[in-house]
Amino acid sequence: MPDARVDTHRALRQGLPEVVYAPGKSADQISAIAAALRDAGQDLLVTRVDPELARALRLAIDGAVYDERARLLWLGPEQVPVVGRGTIAVVCAGTADVPVAAEALGVARRFGNQVEALFDVGVAGLHRLLASSEVLRSARVLVVVAGMEGALPSVVGGLVDRPVIAVPTSVGYGASFGGLAALFAMLNSCGSGLTVVNIDNGFGAGYAASQINALAVGELE
Amino acid sequence: MPDARVDTHRALRQGLPEVVYAPGKSADQISAIAAALRDAGQDLLVTRVDPELARALRLAIDGAVYDERARLLWLGPEQVPVVGRGTIAVVCAGTADVPVAAEALGVARRFGNQVEALFDVGVAGLHRLLASSEVLRSARVLVVVAGMEGALPSVVGGLVDRPVIAVPTSVGYGASFGGLAALFAMLNSCGSGLTVVNIDNGFGAGYAASQINALAVGELE
Amino acid sequence: MPDARVDTHRALRQGLPEVVYAPGKSADQISAIAAALRDAGQDLLVTRVDPELARALRLAIDGAVYDERARLLWLGPEQVPVVGRGTIAVVCAGTADVPVAAEALGVARRFGNQVEALFDVGVAGLHRLLASSEVLRSARVLVVVAGMEGALPSVVGGLVDRPVIAVPTSVGYGASFGGLAALFAMLNSCGSGLTVVNIDNGFGAGYAASQINALAVGELE
Amino acid sequence: MPDARVDTHRALRQGLPEVVYAPGKSADQISAIAAALRDAGQDLLVTRVDPELARALRLAIDGAVYDERARLLWLGPEQVPVVGRGTIAVVCAGTADVPVAAEALGVARRFGNQVEALFDVGVAGLHRLLASSEVLRSARVLVVVAGMEGALPSVVGGLVDRPVIAVPTSVGYGASFGGLAALFAMLNSCGSGLTVVNIDNGFGAGYAASQINALAVGELE
Amino acid sequence: MPDARVDTHRALRQGLPEVVYAPGKSADQISAIAAALRDAGQDLLVTRVDPELARALRLAIDGAVYDERARLLWLGPEQVPVVGRGTIAVVCAGTADVPVAAEALGVARRFGNQVEALFDVGVAGLHRLLASSEVLRSARVLVVVAGMEGALPSVVGGLVDRPVIAVPTSVGYGASFGGLAALFAMLNSCGSGLTVVNIDNGFGAGYAASQINALAVGELE
Amino acid sequence: MPDARVDTHRALRQGLPEVVYAPGKSADQISAIAAALRDAGQDLLVTRVDPELARALRLAIDGAVYDERARLLWLGPEQVPVVGRGTIAVVCAGTADVPVAAEALGVARRFGNQVEALFDVGVAGLHRLLASSEVLRSARVLVVVAGMEGALPSVVGGLVDRPVIAVPTSVGYGASFGGLAALFAMLNSCGSGLTVVNIDNGFGAGYAASQINALAVGELE
Amino acid sequence: MPDARVDTHRALRQGLPEVVYAPGKSADQISAIAAALRDAGQDLLVTRVDPELARALRLAIDGAVYDERARLLWLGPEQVPVVGRGTIAVVCAGTADVPVAAEALGVARRFGNQVEALFDVGVAGLHRLLASSEVLRSARVLVVVAGMEGALPSVVGGLVDRPVIAVPTSVGYGASFGGLAALFAMLNSCGSGLTVVNIDNGFGAGYAASQINALAVGELE
Amino acid sequence: MPDARVDTHRALRQGLPEVVYAPGKSADQISAIAAALRDAGQDLLVTRVDPELARALRLAIDGAVYDERARLLWLGPEQVPVVGRGTIAVVCAGTADVPVAAEALGVARRFGNQVEALFDVGVAGLHRLLASSEVLRSARVLVVVAGMEGALPSVVGGLVDRPVIAVPTSVGYGASFGGLAALFAMLNSCGSGLTVVNIDNGFGAGYAASQINALAVGELE
Repeated sequence: MPDARVDTHRALRQGLPEVVYAPGKSADQISAIAAALRDAGQDLLVTRVDPELARALRLAIDGAVYDERARLLWLGPEQVPVVGRGTIAVVCAGTADVPVAAEALGVARRFGNQVEALFDVGVAGLHRLLASSEVLRSARVLVVVAGMEGALPSVVGGLVDRPVIAVPTSVGYGASFGGLAALFAMLNSCGSGLTVVNIDNGFGAGYAASQINALAVGELE
Repeated sequence: MPDARVDTHRALRQGLPEVVYAPGKSADQISAIAAALRDAGQDLLVTRVDPELARALRLAIDGAVYDERARLLWLGPEQVPVVGRGTIAVVCAGTADVPVAAEALGVARRFGNQVEALFDVGVAGLHRLLASSEVLRSARVLVVVAGMEGALPSVVGGLVDRPVIAVPTSVGYGASFGGLAALFAMLNSCGSGLTVVNIDNGFGAGYAASQINALAVGELE
Repeated sequence: MPDARVDTHRALRQGLPEVVYAPGKSADQISAIAAALRDAGQDLLVTRVDPELARALRLAIDGAVYDERARLLWLGPEQVPVVGRGTIAVVCAGTADVPVAAEALGVARRFGNQVEALFDVGVAGLHRLLASSEVLRSARVLVVVAGMEGALPSVVGGLVDRPVIAVPTSVGYGASFGGLAALFAMLNSCGSGLTVVNIDNGFGAGYAASQINALAVGELE
Repeated sequence: MPDARVDTHRALRQGLPEVVYAPGKSADQISAIAAALRDAGQDLLVTRVDPELARALRLAIDGAVYDERARLLWLGPEQVPVVGRGTIAVVCAGTADVPVAAEALGVARRFGNQVEALFDVGVAGLHRLLASSEVLRSARVLVVVAGMEGALPSVVGGLVDRPVIAVPTSVGYGASFGGLAALFAMLNSCGSGLTVVNIDNGFGAGYAASQINALAVGELE
Repeated sequence: MPDARVDTHRALRQGLPEVVYAPGKSADQISAIAAALRDAGQDLLVTRVDPELARALRLAIDGAVYDERARLLWLGPEQVPVVGRGTIAVVCAGTADVPVAAEALGVARRFGNQVEALFDVGVAGLHRLLASSEVLRSARVLVVVAGMEGALPSVVGGLVDRPVIAVPTSVGYGASFGGLAALFAMLNSCGSGLTVVNIDNGFGAGYAASQINALAVGELE
Repeated sequence: MPDARVDTHRALRQGLPEVVYAPGKSADQISAIAAALRDAGQDLLVTRVDPELARALRLAIDGAVYDERARLLWLGPEQVPVVGRGTIAVVCAGTADVPVAAEALGVARRFGNQVEALFDVGVAGLHRLLASSEVLRSARVLVVVAGMEGALPSVVGGLVDRPVIAVPTSVGYGASFGGLAALFAMLNSCGSGLTVVNIDNGFGAGYAASQINALAVGELE
Repeated sequence: MPDARVDTHRALRQGLPEVVYAPGKSADQISAIAAALRDAGQDLLVTRVDPELARALRLAIDGAVYDERARLLWLGPEQVPVVGRGTIAVVCAGTADVPVAAEALGVARRFGNQVEALFDVGVAGLHRLLASSEVLRSARVLVVVAGMEGALPSVVGGLVDRPVIAVPTSVGYGASFGGLAALFAMLNSCGSGLTVVNIDNGFGAGYAASQINALAVGELE
Repeated sequence: MPDARVDTHRALRQGLPEVVYAPGKSADQISAIAAALRDAGQDLLVTRVDPELARALRLAIDGAVYDERARLLWLGPEQVPVVGRGTIAVVCAGTADVPVAAEALGVARRFGNQVEALFDVGVAGLHRLLASSEVLRSARVLVVVAGMEGALPSVVGGLVDRPVIAVPTSVGYGASFGGLAALFAMLNSCGSGLTVVNIDNGFGAGYAASQINALAVGELE
């Protein structure tokens, strides 16, 4: 594999799956990585896998599980042991944001977390969100996904006292600029403590939430 | 006045004050316009008047009233007859947005409307906004002003069934880009029926709200 | 329907059709929403429906009417009772802007308004516009649609004393930037009282115009 | 003068004044250029001269004439012989655009043209423009200056059959982006034959109009 | 034709062909316009006609001539009487800019001008341009077309004393931003008197050059 | 206080100081808020306080402590009880980034955390960073601050397995665009798990790090 | 060939291959250029050749060698004599950046240089890069290719004392803006002496590296 | 010095002066760095030093030499031994670009190179540049500085076969966008082998040119 260097050390050290971002890699390249990892006894999560690539990979790799909505391909045990200390809630604003939210959800689950989904609760119909405030408040970490005006993370951030990771999506048109409007809105949130990841980066949000949820007790306990 | 053509016809026809936008005009130019309008028996509202210009104009023009917070200078009767058919509510997100909201409020009042102010009710503390939902619901037209992430109009638009005019402000820093983030957020609002004016354009929002509130009964009544 | 929450309350309360924005939703998802609404006795308007999706929906949903030019799919009575108090005029600059104007027109009509269309009257041939000033002046609310330099709303706004909602379109090339040039022009209009919606957002303009035209008499009458 | 190379050949060959753009040059540098040109028997026009620099230059250079509104400093005969074959009309939208229009006007006059000014005729009050259509139609070349939404050149271009040079100005705020909105509008004009210069570039427009107006008869006469 | 208003007056008055911009119009719409104009005895030039549309139009319209490189469809006499008073030179930087240059060239020719083409003379190989300086100097008006860094018009503008119209093209990649880099370069040209049209707007440049070249003698002759 | 609504509930409930963002508020407004909070027995942290405002506030408010480098004004006990469970490390790339890093550091300390600073360790001199890898690895949460090309968080993120919050700063010139270059770099980081806050938002990063560090044991312990 | 002027002088003078950029040119145009050069005894390198064009060109041109990964088509001897004085190292951050890196590598090789490749050594896994520091230090010139956050050239620039040419790639999504984020990062690099080429411009980097590596001894030797 | 880490190793190893970028550092901080370096026997070059800072530093640091035009402060021997193998030519387009060119020139000289300056040779007057082609051709490395349309490096790049480093400047107005237009033009240059540094980055260009000019003979000699 002259063009890709698989790094099995880091994941092994942490007991976490290796992650491969599919775009720009061929089915052959990904299959070769998968084989190398399997030989090393490691799990693999492939992100941004479109259905056509999934078909090719499932033929090449035995036991690969594909979640089309989340565009995730998984090579590992169906039940991952839970190592996160609380629940990660993934909230999204509209139906069209679901694929990005599903990616965050799938990543959090495969990295060993209990997850809870709360979808289609955009700010234009506040009652739907407020009716679910129990779910919001019981989470240890929250991932909030929204396109268009990207207002949902600000509102959620005002309702909870826990870390909120905001994910802008490219859902929208015209002055949405491929998610830039939502991204800028989230960066400018007047809600304290919000942090933001790249547009459509459900993986990054799920990964960061997992890192936070995995934090062991510190010296205070 | 070779550089400015005063148009007394339109305002007279409508019984409304003439409006002059101050930036780019000298105190002398504005005073000359004021004198011409006074001779024609017309009221005048000057917008974006900074304190220094206000001092010069109040020396030059008898009876001019200055509202520093709203940067408005008024030449006309203290009590304008109410011609708007309902109340115009002006809502703003943060303390720093108040000057723009005050401009909208002042314009709506000088154009003959009952007005109501609801300030510092940003989305990061929803309870403050929800506690005032009575004010929101009793208005015939709403002007909603917000900087930073510009989420307030979307939320307000979901709470009422009346026309909502959104005003982005240049309040913010970094990825706020002088109000662009708020402007784009408002244009992308998933709340139906929102319309938007230029950044910091409190005047335009107050004027548009007045036009809507002045609409007489149609053929259905 | 785990990914979409249908909200039949609001529309029912107002006697208005529910609206679904098609992009990002599958034919199956939309059909399920339609069935739920039909059971609840409600009308449905689906926007941004391309011909292929329309074919699938018309097979799945009995009695759906498709307006290809406006990309609108309608489930409800052919004749909607008129509840708007005056006429909504929809004006557009060029032939290529017609789809967006038609969307605004269709939405206004399905929401219970008398409408009037005035198409292909761009500012480069002023006489066509001036020849129709009667239509402009008799409207209670105006929607003005333009791409490229987006100058038409400014000119129309100077000819009437009624609310004007400006809709930029993505028509153009080069420095048009997908409608951004027209959007910025409209936001900067020197015409007082103009408000603006997102690029190509004919639906939003039609909805806002309906809200304004539906305003009942206030306390002055 | 190690940092500036004066080129007296071109101007001499054409019988036109040399032009120096002031920003970034010291009073000493400009005075040295002026002395060199005077020795060569040439006229000089300095552009973008602010009042403070003008004071310094008028002390250093004998007989310099300063037009503060147009920010032009002139060294040459008060009456320049007319060499342009028709009239150049300079039209502007608002009072705040006058400095840029005055620069175009002054340049055209110093380069030997009959000029006509038509100021404060923006598109929001079309009757003012239409009332002056005689002036527009009698010009051989037109320079049209506008900030904010930049719509005036499109409208003027539809009223005349002569070359129209559009000049965007930085007048405006918010989504005006320092004149970018007007620039983009002019580049996207649906009016045929419009050409555009840089934001606030009154000089360039006046110069180009002079070049066109100086075109001698061709082989058809 | 409810969506398009043909304006046969202007063209007739001037003896010039009518022009239709094809994108956003169907073959049927264009054919109907063509029939109406033919009945009125007028020539027609259709711009931005791709090969597929050309096929449809040539079937529908008798005698239509298609220039694929320039994307122009012409309905009129093969030999248009020359009314321009000198030659219009069309210069372009690279092979990929040729379609835009060909459009300018075709428009200028169909509007009654003698034209001269000078292609593939970009600034990175100055000797090719300098070797053709005779062609440049003998033109009455010049159209200079360039993508990428857009430097050619500045250089040409320094070699001639005649009006130069600069046309940026979308040729390039990366930081070319679809022609924006070339557009900005041309607007910032330090060459005096350059004017600019929209990206890829060969038609506009050809039309403006024709307008300038058609200017009759003025009062000086 | 008509323009500002102090919300003492949230902070009291959490035992955390209230935070006020100074820009856009007068010394009088801030002093009034401070008095109200002191009466309620609450601590206050004022951010973005320039030296002139600090002077006014220290005269008006008894016992206010000002950190000029961090632009923070503090009203509360000098020693805040430590409630965070580990150490928050604040890392910055260059000397000019120190004010933003100091703000993050001060906020984290006032919110009850042990903090560690590692300044001037930019990626162009990797050995300085690598020499401090002990500090990086011993932190429970990291805040990484960088302007210009914003590469430091990516590199730090590759060296640790803990949550990393990236803060772009406006340090730079030219194509830095006020911090936009650093912001975009951080959002595009190939390092997994990085989250980002607004340009120069040291407060937001310090607050988010505090929230993460305050997370109590979950159900696993 | 009216649209393209082949310049065989420059290349001949320098003994270097002629280079043709394929996009915007037809297979026929390129074949004609190739034939003309072959007649003149010159080598030819065609860049940005996609597989379909490559098929056509290999049919038309005898002996053409195609490197699909680098999108280069070569007409010349398989072994080019080495004229560069040291080694050019081409380093890239991720697998998806390989095509651009391969283009730089291929160009450097065809222009007579010894080359060394170091791929997939992004900054998020510093140990991979540091493990190869011998390769970095032994190069006379370095080309460093990276998309996304574009941090690799800054880090490499800190490890070596030789000229580093940075190449941003369009690899990324969301706030990557087609490589703009990487481009801006590289331009803002705090590493001294870095120079940058256009996004995805592997050719330009390979060419510039060749020019530097070809520099003969100066007067000091 | 807690906020700045002086790295005397690298410079010592290479026998080159240390460089400090002044903005964001106080006179005290810079003086402390200077003292530390002097103790270590090293030369120091401070860049972007405005006159006020220069005054303070010359009081604090014995023997500091200030070049106001280039904003450079130098602590070292007046005559630096020449180690570069050829001449570095610094070329600039206009008088206003001179400060940036002077910075590049000063840096190259202090790093031990013979330099040659060629100023005010912009592309609008090609004869000035062509008259100096001897200077261009005799240089081993060229730095070409230009603002506005940034065309000069493309033209120079076509005249020489040596490495050309292009420096965009912020000289210009309107659509120059603080140098962005020139930057984009240079990145898109059709001239092969051009590399680019950040806007106004005279230092970076001078440093990169020094690195190239310092390249010793390779294995071919």
